[in-house]
Amino acid sequence: MTVRVGVIGTGMIGQDHIRRITQVLSGGAVVAVTDVDAGRAKQVAGRLPGATVHPTGRELIGDSGVDAVLVTSWAATHEEHVLAAISAGKPVFCEKPLATSEEACLRIIDAEMATGRRLVQVGFMRRYDAAYNALKEVLDDGGIGIPLLMHCAHRNPSVPPYGFTTDMMLIDSAVHEIDLVRWLYGEEVVATSILRPRRSARAGDDLQDPLIVLLEMASGVLVDVEVFVNAAYGYDIRGEIVGESGTVTLADGEPVTAKRDGRRSGRVPADWRERFGRAFDAEFRDWLRAVAARTSTGPSAWDGYAAAAVTESCLEALRTGTRTTVSLRERPNYYATAQRSSRDW
Amino acid sequence: MTVRVGVIGTGMIGQDHIRRITQVLSGGAVVAVTDVDAGRAKQVAGRLPGATVHPTGRELIGDSGVDAVLVTSWAATHEEHVLAAISAGKPVFCEKPLATSEEACLRIIDAEMATGRRLVQVGFMRRYDAAYNALKEVLDDGGIGIPLLMHCAHRNPSVPPYGFTTDMMLIDSAVHEIDLVRWLYGEEVVATSILRPRRSARAGDDLQDPLIVLLEMASGVLVDVEVFVNAAYGYDIRGEIVGESGTVTLADGEPVTAKRDGRRSGRVPADWRERFGRAFDAEFRDWLRAVAARTSTGPSAWDGYAAAAVTESCLEALRTGTRTTVSLRERPNYYATAQRSSRDW
Amino acid sequence: MTVRVGVIGTGMIGQDHIRRITQVLSGGAVVAVTDVDAGRAKQVAGRLPGATVHPTGRELIGDSGVDAVLVTSWAATHEEHVLAAISAGKPVFCEKPLATSEEACLRIIDAEMATGRRLVQVGFMRRYDAAYNALKEVLDDGGIGIPLLMHCAHRNPSVPPYGFTTDMMLIDSAVHEIDLVRWLYGEEVVATSILRPRRSARAGDDLQDPLIVLLEMASGVLVDVEVFVNAAYGYDIRGEIVGESGTVTLADGEPVTAKRDGRRSGRVPADWRERFGRAFDAEFRDWLRAVAARTSTGPSAWDGYAAAAVTESCLEALRTGTRTTVSLRERPNYYATAQRSSRDW
Amino acid sequence: MTVRVGVIGTGMIGQDHIRRITQVLSGGAVVAVTDVDAGRAKQVAGRLPGATVHPTGRELIGDSGVDAVLVTSWAATHEEHVLAAISAGKPVFCEKPLATSEEACLRIIDAEMATGRRLVQVGFMRRYDAAYNALKEVLDDGGIGIPLLMHCAHRNPSVPPYGFTTDMMLIDSAVHEIDLVRWLYGEEVVATSILRPRRSARAGDDLQDPLIVLLEMASGVLVDVEVFVNAAYGYDIRGEIVGESGTVTLADGEPVTAKRDGRRSGRVPADWRERFGRAFDAEFRDWLRAVAARTSTGPSAWDGYAAAAVTESCLEALRTGTRTTVSLRERPNYYATAQRSSRDW
Repeated sequence: MTVRVGVIGTGMIGQDHIRRITQVLSGGAVVAVTDVDAGRAKQVAGRLPGATVHPTGRELIGDSGVDAVLVTSWAATHEEHVLAAISAGKPVFCEKPLATSEEACLRIIDAEMATGRRLVQVGFMRRYDAAYNALKEVLDDGGIGIPLLMHCAHRNPSVPPYGFTTDMMLIDSAVHEIDLVRWLYGEEVVATSILRPRRSARAGDDLQDPLIVLLEMASGVLVDVEVFVNAAYGYDIRGEIVGESGTVTLADGEPVTAKRDGRRSGRVPADWRERFGRAFDAEFRDWLRAVAARTSTGPSAWDGYAAAAVTESCLEALRTGTRTTVSLRERPNYYATAQRSSRDW
Repeated sequence: MTVRVGVIGTGMIGQDHIRRITQVLSGGAVVAVTDVDAGRAKQVAGRLPGATVHPTGRELIGDSGVDAVLVTSWAATHEEHVLAAISAGKPVFCEKPLATSEEACLRIIDAEMATGRRLVQVGFMRRYDAAYNALKEVLDDGGIGIPLLMHCAHRNPSVPPYGFTTDMMLIDSAVHEIDLVRWLYGEEVVATSILRPRRSARAGDDLQDPLIVLLEMASGVLVDVEVFVNAAYGYDIRGEIVGESGTVTLADGEPVTAKRDGRRSGRVPADWRERFGRAFDAEFRDWLRAVAARTSTGPSAWDGYAAAAVTESCLEALRTGTRTTVSLRERPNYYATAQRSSRDW
Repeated sequence: MTVRVGVIGTGMIGQDHIRRITQVLSGGAVVAVTDVDAGRAKQVAGRLPGATVHPTGRELIGDSGVDAVLVTSWAATHEEHVLAAISAGKPVFCEKPLATSEEACLRIIDAEMATGRRLVQVGFMRRYDAAYNALKEVLDDGGIGIPLLMHCAHRNPSVPPYGFTTDMMLIDSAVHEIDLVRWLYGEEVVATSILRPRRSARAGDDLQDPLIVLLEMASGVLVDVEVFVNAAYGYDIRGEIVGESGTVTLADGEPVTAKRDGRRSGRVPADWRERFGRAFDAEFRDWLRAVAARTSTGPSAWDGYAAAAVTESCLEALRTGTRTTVSLRERPNYYATAQRSSRDW
Repeated sequence: MTVRVGVIGTGMIGQDHIRRITQVLSGGAVVAVTDVDAGRAKQVAGRLPGATVHPTGRELIGDSGVDAVLVTSWAATHEEHVLAAISAGKPVFCEKPLATSEEACLRIIDAEMATGRRLVQVGFMRRYDAAYNALKEVLDDGGIGIPLLMHCAHRNPSVPPYGFTTDMMLIDSAVHEIDLVRWLYGEEVVATSILRPRRSARAGDDLQDPLIVLLEMASGVLVDVEVFVNAAYGYDIRGEIVGESGTVTLADGEPVTAKRDGRRSGRVPADWRERFGRAFDAEFRDWLRAVAARTSTGPSAWDGYAAAAVTESCLEALRTGTRTTVSLRERPNYYATAQRSSRDW
């Protein structure tokens, strides 16, 4: 079965996912697109034989030729499109964030639960990364014992000098680690704090870059996340779990090492595409298969809600300079079903 | 365009490529199969909606619904099927070896040249491996200078205790490095020798395991290849190019490292699937795209011929215990077109 | 010139340094010893041809045959012996801590300044470690830009189940990183905090193991130090400096890697002797040379005082659960002379 | 006891060992020197309080104040000085080569055996290198099984453009690996061959640089040694032992890794001093202790003889272009005593 996908939002990310579905993976086709910029939607559709251009997301979702919906539009519109897809009973993949407030996420959860099905997947692609899955395997195998703490770093080479705010370091970057530690440890984040190291002169005047996010898990596991968006030297994602008997660490996975001029050296990824391109492929392969099988295996609406709540706590911690607790609705059994095992990867 | 593929030979390798075309990659479909074991062919077809089972390769090739042919049958049958596909003007992907003798390879070359098109691709998948491409990039960028020598190792954890011969270490294993060095250096192998280290007690009585193959390139670059098919500890493919100004080496690309019990450790691949699974995906993605575009970008019939000739030289060197020169037909301009760039990967 | 050393305290550490001076290094001799356990002092002296046993540190210091004093006795006695050595005008090497209170350290500083000479060296041996010196060289060369933050970990395999307190994790372990960051960055620590991750079940009931110490430097550089004294898997000292343009990290310096049973692995040091044995050698070589040359190049009484003050701040932060500022006396010019360059190592 | 050493030959190497004995290590003193350049000898002695300058090696050896002799003069004079020391019943450390012909080495062996003592140690310092000892430990522990083959590389950044011959690549460089494999495997080399890769344009016209030496051990273990003396990028010594169950490899032991400009990198040693400085220290510490204890633990006259014989075989193989067997005198029981264990290091 080929899953016929309708895409809402044909910007850079949307186009990349369209390329993925149509040129890389089996099992899917893009049959409809829409965008606030109708010209861009039309242009993108022009490269997709037989694809329809819809004036709005609502009409695209209503198109009977569309089996499943991909939301890659502006974050503020996510809630509307996801609710509409749920309402139409169609599986929907929504890029992070699921919505821009906890309340909006809860509305989505309520709507989805009312259907009796799991229709929503949120785009936390790191769960599909080979290295993170190897990390989780070592943890789950018990070889390093019960986890006690974790050190993470999330480094981008640079961000635009204007318009990039410290809040965005939490909303766009730290959110990946927030989802990740929930997935790794199978438990919720209960409190957050923000630490402020010396600022880089490369950062714009108003940017607290780097910063450190502290995440306290329900079991007491403490996670420190360095977020550094003007790290200059490359795109570098680090993680080390410290357990009672040992540790496990993301390796520097350069494919080759060169020796010249007195140095032995390997390449650091240039950007997230180089580092996580294959994780995106795996994420969409998984989603297309799940849609075809009428199941749901990826990050859920609950995961989207929890990430939003923890992010909100981080923003509060940043504003107040104090440790901030996270308050979540009690997790419904509805979302207690087993997540995809790392072995499936 | 979806390339409609007919598969000749539905054994283990054939089934794996069928899975790849139908479940992993976009752009292809398997529409016909055949196998000497008709029951097996039928069983495999049963999992492929709409696929036809043909009694022979000849009839499969003649099927007008088949755009391109994949030959994964027993090596002795390759020549026949490849010639038939050429004769039908259809692109054909043939697993290594292209044929079981130099003469047979030359007949294929003559037939292909007579068509005025490049129809044949041979299954040397290492050219599509990310790490080997990174190696080639460093070499081609000039940073290590002109290459002078190369150290390789090809280690399998084990082979069956009976029926595996020393000749097979050359035909099945060393052939990968033979193709690889031709691709890396863009020149032919001109002589070969075999060295005999101490035999492993794990090897069957008649097996010279490990052995070392020496390959002399036209420019003088000397390549030593350790072939060790009962290496026990894992599947390990090593390579280091030594140039006038530096070296470049395949890294041990473990995704994570663990520390426990006084050791820091990472995983060695268990088998060729783990090590080269993604290279096979890239190889077939490339082939399907090339077929759709009516071009040819992968290892050619000439590459299949040259590999066969060098392998034959190695077998002679093994038999005689002496250095053996390789004599190749002069390379026709027909096969001088640029090979795919490593950047395309 | 051979420096004639008198040793106060012939316990495990004292004996190890005696071995170092007499059997490993040139330039020194141990001519006198004393210990609260007179029998032990006598026993140790029995292995040192011509060495005198003194009943007290005071008499040993007064011995005209003693050029320089090594204090490796119980911490509570350090102040008395160091002051006596200063009073006698003799160079004194005192194992950490310099004294058990800030006030005591200040008395030592005042006494030393009154002599007009630098007589005191404190045993912070990490400044003599090859890897830390390489780290400092990269930092000082400017290649990674201005430092912004640092991640450290200090992991011991285990501590005795009884009698080891959380305070000792700061006094005995974290103090090394406290001195180190002062040396690396050439500035003082201005505030400290303690974070409490999930406790290891291997730790005694009253032990907060692991814990994280946060050190804020005068320039804003933020250092997080994981202290984990029951890490089980080995002795592991980690450090990564993050600068405006890059990072530099202590490597896992295993001398060989083995591949077997599907793993590639290297050794983690078993204990501090394996990890820092050569740093102790370098430290004493440096001290003996400085004494012979009537100069002073190592960690000073001021360094001992500052480390004591920061440690006291950490203890307060542990007790109160809040960020605690460090208040230091203004640094006298007397201690502003250049420290040994890392190049001297 | 302080060993009073007389040094014959005060050139660069001699001066470095004098520095080692007088300024780095305990247990030794340099009390006498001589050199063909009397002025240089006098100058060196000027920095050694109380040291005597002798006009000839013979007189230095006869000096009753000299306990042991260090020969670091020109190779052609080694035999004479070593025989004189043996004749005087004094321990002698001779830098490689022991002598410039097999016959000369045998004369030394005969002379030493006649004394009934082991007086001669040859300067093969790699046996004292920490990494090679770790390699040997893994091998001896049996974890990788019986050794089958070994890959080595011996790379110097450069040699002088004139006057450096291909023979010297064997006599000065390959000789280290020749001794090493004898020590690692506890058996003799029985045959040698030379392979000729493409020459580097950095090499002088008459230099076969790089070349590959093949060493066949008595048990069948095959060792390939790349010798490359104009490798440009640094001083790099590689080694990998392949056994029946696994492998063990010299690690790239950089102390720190830096990340900047898109690369992760570590330092390659600049020269043999940086790589083997500590091995020289350990070698002389061992020798001084052995002399003081009237024992002998290091590489013996037999080792010097065997290395000379294998080197001679390599030179013959280079001249003739063929595999050349090594013929050694039968090893006397006199030299069968256990060599120093790697654990002593």
